Amino acid sequence: MLIEILSTGEEIRSGAVVDSNAAYIARQLEQIDMPAARHTSVGDELDILVNVLSEISQRAQFAIVTGGLGPTEDDRTIEAAAKTAGVGLELFSEALRAMEIFLKKRNLALNPSNRKQAYLPIGSEMFMNPIGTAPGFALTIKDCVFFFLPGVPPEMKQMLAQTIIPRLMDYRGRNAIFQTVKLRLFGLPESGVNERLKEFETVFPKLSLRLRTKFPEIQITLCGSEAQIDRLQNHVKDAQDWVLEKLAPHVFSSSGEPMASVIGDLLHKQGATLAIAESCTGGLISHWITNVAGSSDYFIYTAVVYADVTKVNTLGVSSDTLEKYGAVHERTAQEMARGARDKAGSTFGLATTGIAGPGGGSHAKPVGTICIGLAGPSFLEGYRFTFNFHDRGMHKRIFAMKALDMLRHKLLAM
Amino acid sequence: MLIEILSTGEEIRSGAVVDSNAAYIARQLEQIDMPAARHTSVGDELDILVNVLSEISQRAQFAIVTGGLGPTEDDRTIEAAAKTAGVGLELFSEALRAMEIFLKKRNLALNPSNRKQAYLPIGSEMFMNPIGTAPGFALTIKDCVFFFLPGVPPEMKQMLAQTIIPRLMDYRGRNAIFQTVKLRLFGLPESGVNERLKEFETVFPKLSLRLRTKFPEIQITLCGSEAQIDRLQNHVKDAQDWVLEKLAPHVFSSSGEPMASVIGDLLHKQGATLAIAESCTGGLISHWITNVAGSSDYFIYTAVVYADVTKVNTLGVSSDTLEKYGAVHERTAQEMARGARDKAGSTFGLATTGIAGPGGGSHAKPVGTICIGLAGPSFLEGYRFTFNFHDRGMHKRIFAMKALDMLRHKLLAM
Repeated sequence: MLIEILSTGEEIRSGAVVDSNAAYIARQLEQIDMPAARHTSVGDELDILVNVLSEISQRAQFAIVTGGLGPTEDDRTIEAAAKTAGVGLELFSEALRAMEIFLKKRNLALNPSNRKQAYLPIGSEMFMNPIGTAPGFALTIKDCVFFFLPGVPPEMKQMLAQTIIPRLMDYRGRNAIFQTVKLRLFGLPESGVNERLKEFETVFPKLSLRLRTKFPEIQITLCGSEAQIDRLQNHVKDAQDWVLEKLAPHVFSSSGEPMASVIGDLLHKQGATLAIAESCTGGLISHWITNVAGSSDYFIYTAVVYADVTKVNTLGVSSDTLEKYGAVHERTAQEMARGARDKAGSTFGLATTGIAGPGGGSHAKPVGTICIGLAGPSFLEGYRFTFNFHDRGMHKRIFAMKALDMLRHKLLAM
Repeated sequence: MLIEILSTGEEIRSGAVVDSNAAYIARQLEQIDMPAARHTSVGDELDILVNVLSEISQRAQFAIVTGGLGPTEDDRTIEAAAKTAGVGLELFSEALRAMEIFLKKRNLALNPSNRKQAYLPIGSEMFMNPIGTAPGFALTIKDCVFFFLPGVPPEMKQMLAQTIIPRLMDYRGRNAIFQTVKLRLFGLPESGVNERLKEFETVFPKLSLRLRTKFPEIQITLCGSEAQIDRLQNHVKDAQDWVLEKLAPHVFSSSGEPMASVIGDLLHKQGATLAIAESCTGGLISHWITNVAGSSDYFIYTAVVYADVTKVNTLGVSSDTLEKYGAVHERTAQEMARGARDKAGSTFGLATTGIAGPGGGSHAKPVGTICIGLAGPSFLEGYRFTFNFHDRGMHKRIFAMKALDMLRHKLLAM
């Protein structure tokens, strides 16, 4: 079975937008073990669209196409699909009604360009779009079933999940059941993870394991398909345990949640609260923590303190400590964590102070040095680590992740 | 002239990595007015590589191929190129020598798998890789000139800029000179920018103008090519002035710099310093500000204050204000900005308080409401705006950008 992905639109062709739709669809296809053979991206010229659709229809059994279903003149995918199939367009009145309802809810009227979206190639099967005006559709050209989806990512993702993936699984074998587990880990290089998991294929020949580096973390997807649900569940569970044994304590999530959510859950369970003092991470830890909806339940306060005098004035770091050890030191980090905790009256305090670069490094404390402080009801701890990425942005990200990972280990041990 | 882009590698095909190389190359080609007609991505199977190279050789005059030049067994692009062209491989001893020097600098020895990288298709023209082991090469197959580049982004970018783009410009016309100007703007929708600039093509028929939305900002590239440098410079300058007149005051940068750098330059010029109080933006403004190297010269302190009690304790916001107006109010934002400024002893204070969602909205203050406070030596101001994006992350980004843009206008007026 051969599947291809086609992305259409000038913004993709010109590089104005990176084609993350194709990568997203490819990952979903990997998860049901129906890998895409290739992706193609073209603009919105009718001739090239027709050429590409025709080429794909001669190679593939299935194709997922995104973009070009909108109301403007630049949206030519429907016309190209009809032309390639050698059919005309017809009005899908159900699509028109759905569009009217959708627009009415937003106090908008249907205009002639919206009407265009309800005309689909004769012989299409229409897919409703609950969150936009452009319906999707399936059309068979030669021996290839094309699924045409909107290019707007949330609309594409919803239609893919609700209609296309179940449909493909159906084609693949009506009784197959799929299960996917996503682990996220921090603190090992990809080569180290590969080395530790190299026997996976031998131990679990029926399952597949995929790694994805999203700096500074690594994501692992375990995926299997079998006819019997309980056998599959046991199988995937065994594999997950096997992977966890090889990689613990580096795995911070077995459910695909980001680090900040994991920290949030741990704090929430303990009825605890957090305050943060950031120097070199410059607000990034707080940004991550507050990306989680509901974080106001446990997150109280952050002080981003770049200047030494501000470390003293706002967090009560002692001038003696700063003079004796400097701003980048375990002791300073400890005092910053204690200061943030005291100021906010929180259960825990977390602090970072280090050198993200490009300037500011020395032989004793090179660029990439990070000191982390942890304060709690009965402890005050300071740590130092050195990374080496020659990039300010990467240092900020790995410093922030390391600080949260230290806090995670502390919370787990309590 | 028809140009295509081909990305190879399992990580791209499977979606584990988003294909940003293709978008990058497409943008570079747009800038020299040689747009790519299509991008294709495939994995590392030899058969499909040969098929795709063969298809491209029948359609295009030029093709830029990335990936698959590495030392491992998965790297098959060189083999596929030779097979498609119907030629064998030969040792490029210059490539081998360059590799030895490169590895020796890093105290590494040449191993047999590195040697493989120095064997290129007979008839290739080799391109040195100063920052990696894989050389690039050009090979003509049928009537198409293929440029093969490493997939590692910095290596690809360097080879593209130093060798491929000048080569393509040569093919295009030996005497043409190119000039590009990048503007960044905030506060207008893309449709509004398009509307205001719709006469550009008529007024400047020899120049090209491209828009790129990188939420929450829009980037505009102006680009021209002519035989005479001074005429071109005048021409591009006129176009830039014309665009600025249509879009000012929304353009925050005429040199491609991000908002946080523009703010940094303005503060630096005035010898001024900044303190920030963030509620709903949760640290994002500080993260952006501290992404700029050297920001410690003007950035002093941020308080991220989620809880009301922390707004009172750390910033001295009055309990009366909070009780009377609530946490999300212009008055509260003003007091937060004043508190941050007082606390840090900075020239200016900037504050945000609002509702990023998904929860916390009301009829009077819906999700998407942002209040911004500005404090300075002789002013204290508060503003309120409402956005509507149904996404916490998007709200945080547009709130943070709006706050910085308000500060920018204030700094410009001083």
